[in-house]
Amino acid sequence: MKKYIHSILMAAILPLVGFAQQTPLTQYVKPLIGTAKMGHTFPGATVPFGSVQLSPDTDTIPYAVNGQYTGDVYRYCAGYQYDDPTIVGFSHTHFSGTGHSDLGDILVMPTQGKLQLNPGTADHPENGYRSLYNHDNELAEPNYYRVKLDDHQIKAELTTTTRVGMHRYTYPASDASHLILDLTAGIYNYDGKNVWTVVRVLNDSTLTGYRQTNGWARTRTVYFAIKTSKPFRNYGAKYLDKDVQYRGFWRKFDQEDNFPELAAHNIRMHLDFDTDEGEQIMMKVALSPVSMSNALENMAAEAPHWDFDAVVNQGKKAWEDELSKFTVDMLNKEDLVNFYTSVYHANLMPTVYMDVNGEYKGLDHEVHKAEGFVNYTSFSLWDTFRAFHPWLNLVDPERNADMVSSMMAHYDQSVLQMLPIWSHYANENWCMSGYHSVSVVVDAILKGVYKGDAEAALAVCVQTAKARRYEGIGEYMDLGYVPDDVNGTSVSNTLEYAYDDWCIAQLAKKLGKDDIAAEFSKRAESWRNLFDPSIGFMRPKDSQGKFREEFDVLETHGQGFIEGNTWNYSLYVPHQPEELMEVLGGQSALETYLDSLFTMHLPDKFFANTEDITREGIIGNYVHGNEPAHHVAYLYNLTSSPWKTQERVRQIIRNQYHNGPAGLGGNDDCGQMSAWYLFTSLGFYPVAPGDNHYWLGSPLVKSAEIALQNGKTLKINAVNQSEKNMYVSRVRWNGEDIQGFKISHDDIIQGGELEFVMSSKPKTRR
Amino acid sequence: MKKYIHSILMAAILPLVGFAQQTPLTQYVKPLIGTAKMGHTFPGATVPFGSVQLSPDTDTIPYAVNGQYTGDVYRYCAGYQYDDPTIVGFSHTHFSGTGHSDLGDILVMPTQGKLQLNPGTADHPENGYRSLYNHDNELAEPNYYRVKLDDHQIKAELTTTTRVGMHRYTYPASDASHLILDLTAGIYNYDGKNVWTVVRVLNDSTLTGYRQTNGWARTRTVYFAIKTSKPFRNYGAKYLDKDVQYRGFWRKFDQEDNFPELAAHNIRMHLDFDTDEGEQIMMKVALSPVSMSNALENMAAEAPHWDFDAVVNQGKKAWEDELSKFTVDMLNKEDLVNFYTSVYHANLMPTVYMDVNGEYKGLDHEVHKAEGFVNYTSFSLWDTFRAFHPWLNLVDPERNADMVSSMMAHYDQSVLQMLPIWSHYANENWCMSGYHSVSVVVDAILKGVYKGDAEAALAVCVQTAKARRYEGIGEYMDLGYVPDDVNGTSVSNTLEYAYDDWCIAQLAKKLGKDDIAAEFSKRAESWRNLFDPSIGFMRPKDSQGKFREEFDVLETHGQGFIEGNTWNYSLYVPHQPEELMEVLGGQSALETYLDSLFTMHLPDKFFANTEDITREGIIGNYVHGNEPAHHVAYLYNLTSSPWKTQERVRQIIRNQYHNGPAGLGGNDDCGQMSAWYLFTSLGFYPVAPGDNHYWLGSPLVKSAEIALQNGKTLKINAVNQSEKNMYVSRVRWNGEDIQGFKISHDDIIQGGELEFVMSSKPKTRR
Repeated sequence: MKKYIHSILMAAILPLVGFAQQTPLTQYVKPLIGTAKMGHTFPGATVPFGSVQLSPDTDTIPYAVNGQYTGDVYRYCAGYQYDDPTIVGFSHTHFSGTGHSDLGDILVMPTQGKLQLNPGTADHPENGYRSLYNHDNELAEPNYYRVKLDDHQIKAELTTTTRVGMHRYTYPASDASHLILDLTAGIYNYDGKNVWTVVRVLNDSTLTGYRQTNGWARTRTVYFAIKTSKPFRNYGAKYLDKDVQYRGFWRKFDQEDNFPELAAHNIRMHLDFDTDEGEQIMMKVALSPVSMSNALENMAAEAPHWDFDAVVNQGKKAWEDELSKFTVDMLNKEDLVNFYTSVYHANLMPTVYMDVNGEYKGLDHEVHKAEGFVNYTSFSLWDTFRAFHPWLNLVDPERNADMVSSMMAHYDQSVLQMLPIWSHYANENWCMSGYHSVSVVVDAILKGVYKGDAEAALAVCVQTAKARRYEGIGEYMDLGYVPDDVNGTSVSNTLEYAYDDWCIAQLAKKLGKDDIAAEFSKRAESWRNLFDPSIGFMRPKDSQGKFREEFDVLETHGQGFIEGNTWNYSLYVPHQPEELMEVLGGQSALETYLDSLFTMHLPDKFFANTEDITREGIIGNYVHGNEPAHHVAYLYNLTSSPWKTQERVRQIIRNQYHNGPAGLGGNDDCGQMSAWYLFTSLGFYPVAPGDNHYWLGSPLVKSAEIALQNGKTLKINAVNQSEKNMYVSRVRWNGEDIQGFKISHDDIIQGGELEFVMSSKPKTRR
Repeated sequence: MKKYIHSILMAAILPLVGFAQQTPLTQYVKPLIGTAKMGHTFPGATVPFGSVQLSPDTDTIPYAVNGQYTGDVYRYCAGYQYDDPTIVGFSHTHFSGTGHSDLGDILVMPTQGKLQLNPGTADHPENGYRSLYNHDNELAEPNYYRVKLDDHQIKAELTTTTRVGMHRYTYPASDASHLILDLTAGIYNYDGKNVWTVVRVLNDSTLTGYRQTNGWARTRTVYFAIKTSKPFRNYGAKYLDKDVQYRGFWRKFDQEDNFPELAAHNIRMHLDFDTDEGEQIMMKVALSPVSMSNALENMAAEAPHWDFDAVVNQGKKAWEDELSKFTVDMLNKEDLVNFYTSVYHANLMPTVYMDVNGEYKGLDHEVHKAEGFVNYTSFSLWDTFRAFHPWLNLVDPERNADMVSSMMAHYDQSVLQMLPIWSHYANENWCMSGYHSVSVVVDAILKGVYKGDAEAALAVCVQTAKARRYEGIGEYMDLGYVPDDVNGTSVSNTLEYAYDDWCIAQLAKKLGKDDIAAEFSKRAESWRNLFDPSIGFMRPKDSQGKFREEFDVLETHGQGFIEGNTWNYSLYVPHQPEELMEVLGGQSALETYLDSLFTMHLPDKFFANTEDITREGIIGNYVHGNEPAHHVAYLYNLTSSPWKTQERVRQIIRNQYHNGPAGLGGNDDCGQMSAWYLFTSLGFYPVAPGDNHYWLGSPLVKSAEIALQNGKTLKINAVNQSEKNMYVSRVRWNGEDIQGFKISHDDIIQGGELEFVMSSKPKTRR
């Protein structure tokens, strides 16, 4: 009974006291969050925006077998699923939170006992090199991952620098200890994905090579250099190629036994050692986009030694530097974990894509040198233009400027003369709709973040927006919408092009380019052409101007949309929300629409066949796990019930962000879900990047201090914050009441205090 | 009758007058020589040692289909067979005279009418893009090739610079004129040989790209840049890949219609034009081993204009410069053609393998810059160490020094730490036996040609000779021979290693490295270990020291030899011919052996199953079409009948070198057959490169003047030369009688006159 009273007391007291952070802040980061179900994050070791993400892969289900899509591969976008019983190995490249995938390069697995060069299956790990493991023996921290591999009785530890993965394996006594190097392994693999592989064994502890693949990236090459801390006494390889015809080489050398010049489509290697009980063998794997010699140079520059703990600590220090930009006080420790893990997840991608000497492979398949910027790759722009890049504009503008420079370089290297759509590793994969690099470029220029040639940037955006052959742009330019008969996602494209065009118009206005401003302001209205007043929703229309007859407003697939049905997508006019409200029927019509969206019942069938939509990832028919509606909760600000924005964002945070492995309700999408959380937990959100204003919501923090890159400090103070007091009764900026529901970036970036007075009672109109 | 008398008179007079050359000397070069049967030369356009060999390919029979060797492919080592009725297209890289193959990169074919993207067959050319042609409408000259393509009524003309192929096609009037670019085509192709292909259409008249293959060279990439003189109005492609799984790109773009960013395993392209009657469309194709941008740079440097005739003339001038080193007077015009065509064929390979900026791809898959030398590739060393490289040491030493530098760079880039065996395009293909780069390096140093670090070169030769894992070298070092049970060509290898080892000993002696000299002098005796006195031939021996029981002295295949039976190979002790003679039983035994070799009857069965051996390519059992016996005719000098050397070399020249397309009795082997001709026609031959002496034979020239690179002139004068006067009664060097049968390189290189007094009567001992 006494204990019970204590709990009650704690519960009563703590919310008032709050949970302020303690150093090190890395203690609040749980890389395992999002590794179960659809978060698609990876638990392994990496440094902020590191080129290497050294992480366990729990399965290698192929994307396709004999040309047939296998379906289950979607689980393995990040290589790891928390519920899986086995670990296949540790590979060096991973996307964080994507919904399609690639990578998983240079898979390493320590084994001992019988040499096995095939991975085996999850059901029968003993038939391959993979191993059972137990989460009790697993630890995932920023830049440190540890697990015990039960089948081999080997402790595995991983850490990284930006371009080097360092492995430390503790073996039992064995005269048959191995390091398996599976160069056929990869994420979203299929027969023929490995285009070519080279390995050169330079001496008894050094290898270099490369893996060239044809996957989501059509033409991708990862060069590597490997060193082991102990010389291997023997090594060998297995060639898995079916179609190598010229075998003359084999008469000269046995190419599978201690042959140092390996080259084939598919190679698996083994390095063999004798080990004493508890002996540690370390391995360093450096990557390069350019060459093996650059990989060696990267290793020499970043990890010349074998001090594993020093590498761990150096990376943890880098993380602490990122995390400590934020001093926050929150309602409970779980919130601190969610907050700092969101900071972590918003510091993973895009990744650095250049060598220590500045060289990188360009989209044009040429080697370039990044002059005056850090080159980044893996731009999931359809996701990240919404909140992630705006977040960087606020808290890490120099990095975002480099990302814009990277996109401009991509344009320069593009024979299509387009900014990136979804680009990774010197390739464009053209995934998703819109041309949202335009939004990122414009927002960064208008916020003073990108300091390059603005007129050149405008020209590049215009050129991208006029790529007539791309996804219905030509018809969009001619007709004012993408016709349903031309493109399968015609409505998504039209709405997103219209928003992007509005961004271009904003930059053109700023630069005094009146003709461009006029042209793109007109294009920005294109959303109107697909609104069907007879049903009150956006609807696909054919080239003849006829709306599609059979149309399901709840279905996502095959209805002219991508990752969102028309209930969600019809609200996607972030640049002209008031005009949209008018079209929808005015303030109260919008409120009714939003109320319905958040509360309606979605029939079961829509969960079965839709990627990313789970019972957990959805509130009514509002899908937080997909991005098109990320701004929607903020739209209540336009109605007479802004308190519903406050209520909904608190609800979304409480519903969609948890501490466990299944803590993310959908793909983190390269930090977009986390950036949404971060903005929202601070009380504001960039509804339309390219506009200078954030829309106000309801903060989750009790207080926060953000060290801005210009030396100023942004303070958030939520007076009377509590779980119940989710409503905002008053907002002041530097002591003055804010009229309306917006605050400008220009104000915020000068530093100051944003004070929210919290209340348990909704306020109809502030 | 009068006419008849005139002919008789001419025949009587002309041999006395002789046929002295007339300028231009290019008139005597017939690139078609060797294009029928087994010469394996190509008729197309190239400049001396040019990177581009732009030549017609008459068929594309695959090396293998579904893993099964097709057999007939051997005909197409150079892509062209004179007897074929159709031309498939014009590709940019060709070996000259090889017996295995690769290359045939970037095949271009002009067509008009119905667009066809498959090559069709020789029987039904109308079903594809290939065309019938007639030799009456064909002209092959140094750096100029012309042919009429009957099916398309297009005149095709080709010329080159070192790194650029220039095409000029004269079309009929057509609204469907095409340039087909078949990037799947290649020589010795098979399913899966194309590893990856990229094409980028930069604008309506410029393309760049690369073709990456896995063939005789495992990992070979040829980068290209293409410009057309007229913009194409349309372009497209066909992807022939079976195993491209990720097709998401196709939703964004039709990748076969005017899509400028092509990438796949197998691509065929078409560029479409309207043409007026007689309209010429030109095309420039620049190659690079490094990058597309380097290819563009090569084009800008070497062929910035569209003056086709200027390119022809510039190349002809380069040829004239090479040919005019030699001022010769011969017995008839056919001999002049053979002489200058031999000079031509001995100026094709190895080829320049670096860009105008000095960059090249190394064996280590890295980009290097050639500092202080021109980098060459395609070293057919088993052939060319014998006479070709010694020929360069005499007439083009600076180029041979660069070739040695290229081999030293190869070594530096070799993780195996070996000099090249048979290397091409940044790859080692390990073809044939021995490590004969050692011979080339040593000969070039001992003749003062290679001026690099001789001690370093010696160390590199020694390291190569100690590559224990390579082709039985370890056992050879341990046992004194390569055992039959370890290696299928154990006798060839043993004999050739022994010769190469002797070369190393010579260099070691010169550098005062007594221990190395002793070690390798001992190894040089290893040939003794495989001589079986019971049969009087070299014979395979197993690890236990037991000669193979069943052994066929006439058979080439499966008897421990490669490209030569023991009758030919038992004489392969070029470094210790007198010791060999002793082992064979002395002077008269050797003479009897040689007489038998040249006169015996070889049963029919040996012609059926042996590459390179034809009735035309053989004299008795002496096989001139293969190289191991190239020194053999000179061995009569050791006997009391040196006149038999004189007789046999004249016989070989008359038998094996003709003016027609079938004018070569065997593969020209990258100039080795031609270099044999050139040395022999001047009256001397390098029996054992690494030794400073040439052995004397019987000149074919009436007189010759050779402009040496040091400014000196070497004159040959054959007094009383005639068809019948093939015997040498006296030889003088600068007026003094030569004692014995040798003359030293050191003497010759100082310039002077070598006078042969010719006679119709053999002289038993001079």
